[in-house]
Amino acid sequence: MKPVKVGILGLGTVGSSVFNLLNDNAVEIARRVGRTIEVAHIGARRDNPACDLSSVTVSRDLMDVLDDESIDIVVELIGGTTLALELVLKAIAQGKHVVTANKALIAEHGNEIFAAAQKKGVTVAFEAAVAGGIPIIKSIREGLSANHIEWVAGIINGTGNFILTEMRDKGRDFADVLAEAQALGYAEADPTFDVEGIDAAHKLAILGSIAFGVPLQFSKVYTEGISEITPQDVQYAADFGYQIKHLGIARKVEAGVEMRVHPTLIPSSRIIANVDGVMNAVLVKSDKTGATLYYGPGAGGNPTASAIVADVVDAARVLTADPTNRVPHLAFQPDALADTPILSMDEVETSYYLRLAAQDKSGVLADVTRILSDKGISIQAVMQQEPEPDQEAVSVVILTHTVMEKEMNAALAEIEALSAISEKVVRIRMEQLDD
Amino acid sequence: MKPVKVGILGLGTVGSSVFNLLNDNAVEIARRVGRTIEVAHIGARRDNPACDLSSVTVSRDLMDVLDDESIDIVVELIGGTTLALELVLKAIAQGKHVVTANKALIAEHGNEIFAAAQKKGVTVAFEAAVAGGIPIIKSIREGLSANHIEWVAGIINGTGNFILTEMRDKGRDFADVLAEAQALGYAEADPTFDVEGIDAAHKLAILGSIAFGVPLQFSKVYTEGISEITPQDVQYAADFGYQIKHLGIARKVEAGVEMRVHPTLIPSSRIIANVDGVMNAVLVKSDKTGATLYYGPGAGGNPTASAIVADVVDAARVLTADPTNRVPHLAFQPDALADTPILSMDEVETSYYLRLAAQDKSGVLADVTRILSDKGISIQAVMQQEPEPDQEAVSVVILTHTVMEKEMNAALAEIEALSAISEKVVRIRMEQLDD
Repeated sequence: MKPVKVGILGLGTVGSSVFNLLNDNAVEIARRVGRTIEVAHIGARRDNPACDLSSVTVSRDLMDVLDDESIDIVVELIGGTTLALELVLKAIAQGKHVVTANKALIAEHGNEIFAAAQKKGVTVAFEAAVAGGIPIIKSIREGLSANHIEWVAGIINGTGNFILTEMRDKGRDFADVLAEAQALGYAEADPTFDVEGIDAAHKLAILGSIAFGVPLQFSKVYTEGISEITPQDVQYAADFGYQIKHLGIARKVEAGVEMRVHPTLIPSSRIIANVDGVMNAVLVKSDKTGATLYYGPGAGGNPTASAIVADVVDAARVLTADPTNRVPHLAFQPDALADTPILSMDEVETSYYLRLAAQDKSGVLADVTRILSDKGISIQAVMQQEPEPDQEAVSVVILTHTVMEKEMNAALAEIEALSAISEKVVRIRMEQLDD
Repeated sequence: MKPVKVGILGLGTVGSSVFNLLNDNAVEIARRVGRTIEVAHIGARRDNPACDLSSVTVSRDLMDVLDDESIDIVVELIGGTTLALELVLKAIAQGKHVVTANKALIAEHGNEIFAAAQKKGVTVAFEAAVAGGIPIIKSIREGLSANHIEWVAGIINGTGNFILTEMRDKGRDFADVLAEAQALGYAEADPTFDVEGIDAAHKLAILGSIAFGVPLQFSKVYTEGISEITPQDVQYAADFGYQIKHLGIARKVEAGVEMRVHPTLIPSSRIIANVDGVMNAVLVKSDKTGATLYYGPGAGGNPTASAIVADVVDAARVLTADPTNRVPHLAFQPDALADTPILSMDEVETSYYLRLAAQDKSGVLADVTRILSDKGISIQAVMQQEPEPDQEAVSVVILTHTVMEKEMNAALAEIEALSAISEKVVRIRMEQLDD
């Protein structure tokens, strides 16, 4: 099938991340889509040194991208709601599909944009507009399509969540943490949109519409920021077993729909109460599924680019009705499945928790650590328990660093052969699961 | 557009939940899809008293459903891998789309099934096969389609997670908790599939394939159960800051793909370490998005039915190439958006955290509680702080039960008018976010 041609408007952090992502992962994406996705034209006032633009047409006039008849899908990344609106409507009028990360544009002008798109039979996709790299639009719109949704509650502004997390962990003031967030680049020079909840309100207006089937009504979202939260309140809330989070809440009740963004006490035991730092999460309560939660990075060039490119892939899938253009059963095209070997457990590298029942003789631990060391296994921590009153053996618990499983098997065989080791060694694998 | 006709094979817990869901939420689903989804034919050895089958054709011979030419989509819910395989292949041969919740069938025979479906141009959807109500297949296959996935780690068996959670919280033995889980209906009479990890291995084989683009290879998944975990190990792990979870892990490394199900120590600070009881969660690490997590109920009639019906909706969307059949921009068809009012904050009902700066006079708390009580606001907890050395006022913190915001506004106006209240009352809303 012929390549999908993409035009990008705007080459800032997100635009350059989209361009680079499509290059970095071109082969893997083509294995999924069944055709190549190619950036054919970029409209930008200036080049971005993060991108090698040698093989792409670059225009200073954004309209040139829209006028390029080879372009199937336009990605709008210039931000704002004036020129962006004009460009998106023009792209639609030309029968091009549109992908945008522009939450303000969708929240404030979505009704008009979607009506125009509907009339032209094109799609306008906006996964990146809410919660960055988390596929929350797709999950609500498609994954939960069988449900009556009761409410949605989200941590949908990473800057605000970073500030509240720091205030809680370090007992610091709002203003103090905000200054640090600005220095770290998490907060804009003008932080109003983030800390006063306007950014979250844009996102909530979108979430509320797709959850409850009402038109976008950004102006009716109640919006309260976090600038008046004090370390004192954070502490008192904790004393009662609560965390203060800046939530966007959309709820369907008998009288209508609530849409509100404000600081909120939530029980510390909830999963979403443990979403810290710049991370985002959206909790959705629906009648049949119950509570589901979606967690991940809510901002940043790469996570946002991931959502944009996923939308581009979806748009590419509606370019033809050919069944081979559908989502493949195993995510990758049948003829693009790889014969990558599945490793045997012997070849897996991980770290370990070991528990040994050792006769309480001096020298046992020395023998054990020598055996481990001989196999190249280094120890991260050791804990020796006093024997239980009715038992002779002491429990020795060892956490190791990573090693190939076959080395660990060999070491355990030697350890179990020691006369002072009275039982089979308990071995549980350990994973850090870190980024 | 004409209704989509669904045939259901099997009317046990999941089959009856699918049937009832499609009736309960028929209007809301039709608002999303743009056409009605109708169960036209059920094949089941016996009726299920949970379903009113008066308006549907029921056949005792399952083949009758496949031979029904009106049926567009067949939902296979009989379980097992022999008759189910035969039925699914026959449905495909007849050009019908198939939806199944059968993880064993997909993990063990998916390669054959998908090849047949590909040849016929039909889809076989299996969202319900992994992690029940969580749209994890869709999230990985479509939401993360721009990414190179590095690893996937999931709590994908609710029974096992329930047992480990109880062992940790109550220091109980494996056998003891298993007996309780069986009494509660969380564990089967023969719990082998759950506690020995076979069920999780089926799911992991599927996750591994869609993450890395390799064929299904269930027989190569390393599988170790939780029956040998002792309360002692759970405790020692906790002493080191770890939780023991039964994880399915698929990881792409240079030499190949790891696929393994085993008990695993993970740091308690990870979000996934806090996934307790019968809940499931899948953590996906990808190159561009970083870590995203998907959490929700992994089993049960309704959550499973939700995933099945979402697949039915997806299948319905490929029945025609008409753009109006696509996923609507705002989840619901443009002509099906509702004019449900967005409520003003006055009309929102929630509970509150209040902090008052009160001159330390007797009688203040009595005045405050009287005002709250007059407005119908009941108090859940009160905490009075000693004044700080340099301050005259004491902090009184009150948590209330739910009340309409306008009542709270009126109460706060009266409280702030009290002579003993020296500052504006701090008011932060509170949400339980419970199921």
